[in-house]
Formats: sequence, structure tokens, C-alpha cells
Amino acid sequence: MIILGIDPGLNKTGVGVLKVDNKNLGYLHHFVIKTDPKESLVLRLKEITTGLSDIIKEFQPSYAAVEDIFYSVNIKSAILLGQTRGCIISTLVASGVEVMEYTALQIKKSVVGYGKADKEQVKKMVEMLLKIELRNTLNDASDALACAICLGLNLTNYTFGNLR
Amino acid sequence: MIILGIDPGLNKTGVGVLKVDNKNLGYLHHFVIKTDPKESLVLRLKEITTGLSDIIKEFQPSYAAVEDIFYSVNIKSAILLGQTRGCIISTLVASGVEVMEYTALQIKKSVVGYGKADKEQVKKMVEMLLKIELRNTLNDASDALACAICLGLNLTNYTFGNLR
Repeated sequence: MIILGIDPGLNKTGVGVLKVDNKNLGYLHHFVIKTDPKESLVLRLKEITTGLSDIIKEFQPSYAAVEDIFYSVNIKSAILLGQTRGCIISTLVASGVEVMEYTALQIKKSVVGYGKADKEQVKKMVEMLLKIELRNTLNDASDALACAICLGLNLTNYTFGNLR
Repeated sequence: MIILGIDPGLNKTGVGVLKVDNKNLGYLHHFVIKTDPKESLVLRLKEITTGLSDIIKEFQPSYAAVEDIFYSVNIKSAILLGQTRGCIISTLVASGVEVMEYTALQIKKSVVGYGKADKEQVKKMVEMLLKIELRNTLNDASDALACAICLGLNLTNYTFGNLR
């Protein structure tokens, strides 16, 4: 079974692709969808829709976890981040992908075992758990892979760390 | 040419459908997509995606105007409204519909000629301009039709009121 983890962002949306096989999580792909801040919001959301649709077509995932958002620095950025996340969820459900939601706290707890872990710790644990090298990779990608790991662990009822 | 006007809301999203023929705007349909607050966010966004997709399939619009949002009472509702709007825009662009954005101020100016008009004034003008009866209709529907009128007037370069 193929699963996605997604870290939503209007500038950069990270997507991680894993294969779940019994209790093994295998790395398949990671990708960052970037949009140009000089373009209109509609065009940027179109780029995210198209980029994600391409990944769905290629990997045919059954499930996707989208990082949940509760907080934003201000109303304006909350609306922008919200629109990005809504665009992502709509694209997934339109393709029949089952969507789950995890908070950053849940993701960090499941991957690092500590809810307040920083992005470097998350990246190191993702490298270790998936046996890959992410040194020159954007945090958006490692966060997305961490989100996919959290989903994978939850689906297989197996936890490296403590999921809840 | 068929056009849509959309007033985004997680509880109720209004959709208005007009036919633009030379300089005439003709009423075709209005619809309110309602979602159940007791359901999960993902399921509610799925209902909006499906409801809007059905309208797109039925009417094959070329353009859609989605009311722009700048303000919200708090971060939490800004994120929810943002996700609804992102879901709507993604569904439209995925179907090849050209998406325009208008603020409530622009819509009211174009339909009523006054940017601070209240919802009842907007409804009255929509009834007059489209020669329809909206007495028992939700404001979400009349706001969506007003948004479609604003788009239609802009596309045909004809203004009842003052668009800018």
C-alpha cells in the first residue's frame, strides 16, 4: 500500500511517499511543490493542485496524512495557509484518496518520541527510520516524510515512538 | 457563455449560475452546498468538492468568481474559511474553469453601487437585475448571484453600478 505525507505551505508544500508492507515502511519518493510569490493566488493554488495530482497519478496512494494547522502568526497568513490546505485536501478527496489529519505534536511524538522536537531532530529520525540521506533536503520534505511515517505507524498499529 | 459566482463558507457555500449573452445576464440556477458541522473537516470539504464538481459538470462554466476574504473574527475561523475557499478554487481550476476574485466591496459596488450595502439591499438588486424572486432564498445564494453579476458585468465591460 502506498501512502503520502503532506506538509502544506503556499510557498513550499512538501510531499513524502512511502510504501507500507506489513510492518515495514519503505521510502519511495519526496518532492517539494514550490510556487512563485509574485504570481496570483489562483495560479499558485493551480500549481499545487496540478503538482499533487501528478504525484497521485504516478503513485496511486490509498491514504494521505495532511499536517493539521491550528495556529498562524496573523489572520492574513492563516487565510493563505488555510487556502493551501483546503486545496490539498480537495485534490486528494477528488482522487479518492483517504485523508487523515495529524498535528505537528502528534507527528513529532510518533517520529522522535518528543512533541517539541526541532526540525533537525525530525530530519535525523526520518533518515534513520527510512534509511535515507536527507542532508541537502528542504525541511518541507523531511516534515512531509515524518507526517507519512506517523500515518504509516498508525495504519500498521506499530509505533517507534509514542503516537498519542 | 456560462459563469459562476461563489460565496465560500464551510457551513454554507452559495453558488449562482448565470448565462452571459452579449450584454445580457440571464439567471440559470442557484444552489447552496450545506455541510454538517458534526462531520469531520475532511468530509465537509469532500462534500463541497463533490457538490461543486456536480454543478461544473452540469453547467460547464467558462469563468467563476470567488468572493475574496481578507478578514475573519479569529485565527481559527480564518483557517476554516481559508480551507473552504482553497477547496473551491482547487476544484474549479482542476476542471479548467478560469477563476477571478472579487472582494465584497467590489461586488456590492457593482451590484448596488454602494460598497457598504447590506445583504437585503444586495438581494433586492439581484432580484431586479436578474428578474427573479429570492424572498425565501438564503443570503448565501443571493450573495453568490451578486458575485456572478459582478463577474458578468466585468466580462462584458458593462456596469449597472460602478465596478471599481
